[in-house]
Amino acid sequence: MEVRLAENYGFCFGVKRATKLAEANKNSSTLGPLIHNPKEIERLEKGYNVKSQEDITKLSKAENVIIRTHGIEKDKKEYLENENFAVIDATCPFVTKPQEIAEKMSDEGYDVVIFGDNSHPEVKGVKSYAKKAFVVSGVEDLKKLKLSERVAVISQTTRKIENYLLVTDYLVKNCREIRVFNTICNATFDNQDAVSKLAKEVDIMIIVGGKNSSNTKQLLSIASKECDFSYLVEDEKDLKSEWFKGKNVCGVSAGASTPDWIIDNVVDNIRKI
Amino acid sequence: MEVRLAENYGFCFGVKRATKLAEANKNSSTLGPLIHNPKEIERLEKGYNVKSQEDITKLSKAENVIIRTHGIEKDKKEYLENENFAVIDATCPFVTKPQEIAEKMSDEGYDVVIFGDNSHPEVKGVKSYAKKAFVVSGVEDLKKLKLSERVAVISQTTRKIENYLLVTDYLVKNCREIRVFNTICNATFDNQDAVSKLAKEVDIMIIVGGKNSSNTKQLLSIASKECDFSYLVEDEKDLKSEWFKGKNVCGVSAGASTPDWIIDNVVDNIRKI
Repeated sequence: MEVRLAENYGFCFGVKRATKLAEANKNSSTLGPLIHNPKEIERLEKGYNVKSQEDITKLSKAENVIIRTHGIEKDKKEYLENENFAVIDATCPFVTKPQEIAEKMSDEGYDVVIFGDNSHPEVKGVKSYAKKAFVVSGVEDLKKLKLSERVAVISQTTRKIENYLLVTDYLVKNCREIRVFNTICNATFDNQDAVSKLAKEVDIMIIVGGKNSSNTKQLLSIASKECDFSYLVEDEKDLKSEWFKGKNVCGVSAGASTPDWIIDNVVDNIRKI
Repeated sequence: MEVRLAENYGFCFGVKRATKLAEANKNSSTLGPLIHNPKEIERLEKGYNVKSQEDITKLSKAENVIIRTHGIEKDKKEYLENENFAVIDATCPFVTKPQEIAEKMSDEGYDVVIFGDNSHPEVKGVKSYAKKAFVVSGVEDLKKLKLSERVAVISQTTRKIENYLLVTDYLVKNCREIRVFNTICNATFDNQDAVSKLAKEVDIMIIVGGKNSSNTKQLLSIASKECDFSYLVEDEKDLKSEWFKGKNVCGVSAGASTPDWIIDNVVDNIRKI
């Protein structure tokens, strides 16, 4: 099977930075999984004794605490600081920015709207910096809100710009002033554009990434629009040989939290089919 | 001929206010035409001796100076104040607002973008309140600009929201922060919605208004989409009997600067056809 890789794929700036921080700080704990990729988490635990701890009260002061790429809630960060934990902040700078915006806009009296997934750690973190913030997944959610005439709006970094524009359009129509912050990460765009382009040229598309990774799922959704045979795999073990019957060219891309070593394994296995 | 009037048409709040101010201040001069309707200007001149003067240096201090509904440039207003003219400000409050926004955003370091017609007096006035402002008529104009990452955007009051959204969408995509002010006037919306609805139900549409009135021309454009036989008239003299051959029902609407007495004359004449 011929394999073509997308022009842009895989680890983004923030994830590269976070894994380097984890490798440089052996025997640490991360508060929640450092990134959305179980295999890489496992590699960091085995190779560097960096463990993931969901419960903040179970952290030990004897070890460093690494804050995950998606960031954490403001009160949790304050707790760690007040309790004098040794904190290493691996929050992606593209996530720190919307946290700061949420806090500033809230202080200036704007209603804060966050376009994203209410249950996503990044969104929970950003939301916690505003005195009051509304999380919406689209226009239908907005319609239910009673907003003031002055609204600030932020997007989860991994959302599609086209969907964000539906939200901002609604707000422009219905509010006197809106402050729109384009907090969508370019790395996400670049990977998405490259998938859309590649999926047009191939018989089958394989997206490599965590099944709970928001941006990986979006890559799959974009690929599916251009190529009927698009699949998501976490690693080479998820590949099914019947997918490839009668196909000649396979496109490969990977989510922003997928490490190169996993992608390489998947590619090697597809080439052998 | 049966005549149906649109649910909303004609004089808006700002124009009603301006003509009342003119009637209450006989023997005044307006700096430029008070509103965009030559017939109403003529009526105010004949009935109240309110004259239109384009040249600011030819105004006399012996009489009141009325500022037109569309507003004037900041330097002209300052000149009138510094020279101690008796000024009556008939600027529509919905135009004063974007002037204030342009000044404030410019002071706060934002690039100011105005969506509108560069040659329209309202836009010239609003623009003059910013240290630097870019007037754009659409996305093509925006593409030529080198904008900073922080942009404030204002619309001419009579623009269509759908077109404004094309401008704001482009800015959201290309700037880190944009402040969108919805400065479009509801009166314009209401008249436009009513024309669109009425034009679907009739055989012919007549829009009454000044041929240089921006919002009157937009009503004609909206009517034309729904009804192939849509015409703009300034008064009953512009009506042509051949337009009405084979037609049974005529819809009528009027621009925001068209006085009721002109609309009544037009309707009376159509009924007689």
